[in-house]
Amino acid sequence: MDHFHYTNGHLHCENVAVADIARQHGTPAYIYSKATFLHHYRAVRDAFAALDPLICYSIKSCANLNILEFLKDEGAGFDVVSGGELARAMAVDADPQGIVFAGVGKTDAEIEQAIDANIGYFNVESEAEMENLIAIANRRNAKIRCALRVNPDVDPKTHRYTSTGQKESKFGVDLERARRFFDAYGREANVHLAGIHLHIGSPVNDVSRYVLAITKGVQLIDELRADGFEITAIDIGGGFGAHYREEEAPPAVQYAEAIVPLLKDKGLKVIMEPGRTIAANAGTLVTETLYIKKSGDRAFVIVDAGMNDLIRPSLYEAFHFIWPVAPAEGFAIQARADAAKLSGLHEQDVVGPVCESGDFLAKDRLLPPVARGDLLAVFSAGAYGMVLASHYNARPHPPEILVDGSDVRVIRRRETFDDLVAAERF
Amino acid sequence: MDHFHYTNGHLHCENVAVADIARQHGTPAYIYSKATFLHHYRAVRDAFAALDPLICYSIKSCANLNILEFLKDEGAGFDVVSGGELARAMAVDADPQGIVFAGVGKTDAEIEQAIDANIGYFNVESEAEMENLIAIANRRNAKIRCALRVNPDVDPKTHRYTSTGQKESKFGVDLERARRFFDAYGREANVHLAGIHLHIGSPVNDVSRYVLAITKGVQLIDELRADGFEITAIDIGGGFGAHYREEEAPPAVQYAEAIVPLLKDKGLKVIMEPGRTIAANAGTLVTETLYIKKSGDRAFVIVDAGMNDLIRPSLYEAFHFIWPVAPAEGFAIQARADAAKLSGLHEQDVVGPVCESGDFLAKDRLLPPVARGDLLAVFSAGAYGMVLASHYNARPHPPEILVDGSDVRVIRRRETFDDLVAAERF
Repeated sequence: MDHFHYTNGHLHCENVAVADIARQHGTPAYIYSKATFLHHYRAVRDAFAALDPLICYSIKSCANLNILEFLKDEGAGFDVVSGGELARAMAVDADPQGIVFAGVGKTDAEIEQAIDANIGYFNVESEAEMENLIAIANRRNAKIRCALRVNPDVDPKTHRYTSTGQKESKFGVDLERARRFFDAYGREANVHLAGIHLHIGSPVNDVSRYVLAITKGVQLIDELRADGFEITAIDIGGGFGAHYREEEAPPAVQYAEAIVPLLKDKGLKVIMEPGRTIAANAGTLVTETLYIKKSGDRAFVIVDAGMNDLIRPSLYEAFHFIWPVAPAEGFAIQARADAAKLSGLHEQDVVGPVCESGDFLAKDRLLPPVARGDLLAVFSAGAYGMVLASHYNARPHPPEILVDGSDVRVIRRRETFDDLVAAERF
Repeated sequence: MDHFHYTNGHLHCENVAVADIARQHGTPAYIYSKATFLHHYRAVRDAFAALDPLICYSIKSCANLNILEFLKDEGAGFDVVSGGELARAMAVDADPQGIVFAGVGKTDAEIEQAIDANIGYFNVESEAEMENLIAIANRRNAKIRCALRVNPDVDPKTHRYTSTGQKESKFGVDLERARRFFDAYGREANVHLAGIHLHIGSPVNDVSRYVLAITKGVQLIDELRADGFEITAIDIGGGFGAHYREEEAPPAVQYAEAIVPLLKDKGLKVIMEPGRTIAANAGTLVTETLYIKKSGDRAFVIVDAGMNDLIRPSLYEAFHFIWPVAPAEGFAIQARADAAKLSGLHEQDVVGPVCESGDFLAKDRLLPPVARGDLLAVFSAGAYGMVLASHYNARPHPPEILVDGSDVRVIRRRETFDDLVAAERF
């Protein structure tokens, strides 16, 4: 579900024609719908209300300060994975107790920064990190709270780069090591091991994967409690799906129906880390067609957005639905599923201007006729889009534009050449 | 060949201990050797001297202004693929006639910028682009010179993302279309189709691939000349290899021995676009070990450099030789080939702090014992390293540090949190 819709044959974001935004602000550009962000955040919050969870929006999915601020105003906490993300959260005056800090490679400086900020939880990923946390906390005589990240060894059935909860991953510790971990570090004076953290990967559209992982997690907590450890929290991570192809991701209520019964009445503070499921469908990358080209039997639509702007197709073999902002006569759609029913589509590759073959947004994609100057919308680009942008080929970052009803606001301006070289001492 | 060497058991860049640089400037950091850049540039120049080529350093491989400047001082021209790269070249006062502009998606603004700069050649990639060039040149009554990029349909035997000269690629036009292209556009008043451009991919260590491609290119030029077209230039592209594993890339003289005879006495201005072969071995990414971890049977060295700093392993499955900056007793090496002969190495994954499984620098790598605090050198990171850096996980870009003999200079400072959010309007 999102607030990008075709009205009178033209794509709109909420009440605003996308073509008007592109005309005013140029392309490529990330356009976000505030209502879509809020819709998905509230869907998670309402679906899991019976657990009264701490919902920590995953900053790494889409990090713009303006977006963080209105999510904070809705009550969101934040999942951060670096000092930079922690600084982002603090810049919007987030409640530090609503911040969880994950990541396998926390530096001493980042740990100190998080202690100074008085965050809610450190999600601990290894014995070595735990020993470092204890050393720093003891040196400073600071009280900190941790959750141990545990690998439930559940296959999330997603891309290998975003599968994170299996054995032999760099993340967390395996289930069988978790009890030894608590035996070793569960009775520290300054560092309280208060819970466990699970994160199996992203996107995970199969709800049963969560049931498997959380069941194992709850069983571990029962065992730890039997061993005398006071376990007060479970962080069930993120990874809920988003609509990339059609409407394939389960709604939040479907995850909740399966997950809530496992955690209700367990006396646990439940923490959630949704990112993609909130941000993905709230953002669209708009790009202009520069050239149409044939090469052998292959047709190319060359656009002004490249892998530097959106690397997911290249890096994760990710699918993004793409459709013209103002489709030619006969190619109007209401929902993405309509596209498959149209005749007159042609297989085309949508590629960017970057000088490598890895620079593509779609391959062998059935599209309506597209001509030079036509705008294309690359949907579901809100999560892991702008945050992964690079300056490859000396291409400045595109702007981020937030639509709220009829209001259009640039929340990150387009970069200039001067921005590219600002840090170079020349 | 490079000027990174172990002396007294410690890695040095030219005359400076890498550990001293890391201590002063922190990690992760890109460290470059000026002498290595110059060595490789001069090796190409000297090997191909018989052709008196225009050597256009490929800015996309490593783009820092300071590096461009000393290469310009050596006589290099520049290969640019965007308005941003053209601006970089102009910022170091490059001779515009020594600039070639390639890329499948040149925008009108970029074309105007290049006409204003009076660059040497536009490398044209499609009929649609050519028509646009002609329209703009005619409107401005500007004289411009072009080379047609031709796909010689030679398999470069490299990663699919960096194979660029095959049929059905987004780049250039197929051989059989080239003559039709000249028939259609070869007699324009303002746009002179002066030559052809070949680029088969990168890195290409098999010299025979160039022989095949250039032979086809020269044959095409003979045919075009027979058709009455005045062909004055051939751009043989880039893609010469670099040493990633050991010393596997052919030296420039070996490419030259095969290529020079094909082009000598053809009455052609020869243009070359070396990037990787000049920059790759001139740069090393230095990173500090944060934690050592076991997960199942797998051992992880968690370092403070991630896929945001160097994405080649993740994106291209690229191999970078990695070795401690100060190896433990018994693990000193003079050349990379020595490493394989050592006993006591263990298979380890070198991974970064970024929160995804795709964040790794090496998998199943035989390494000496490594402990928290140890510095590791990720070699051959000069090309397609820093230029592909992102801010993923809100991680600021590392600094770039240039060593020249005993002189150490920060040529790009480490970014700060303020840099990350500078463009956000909040």
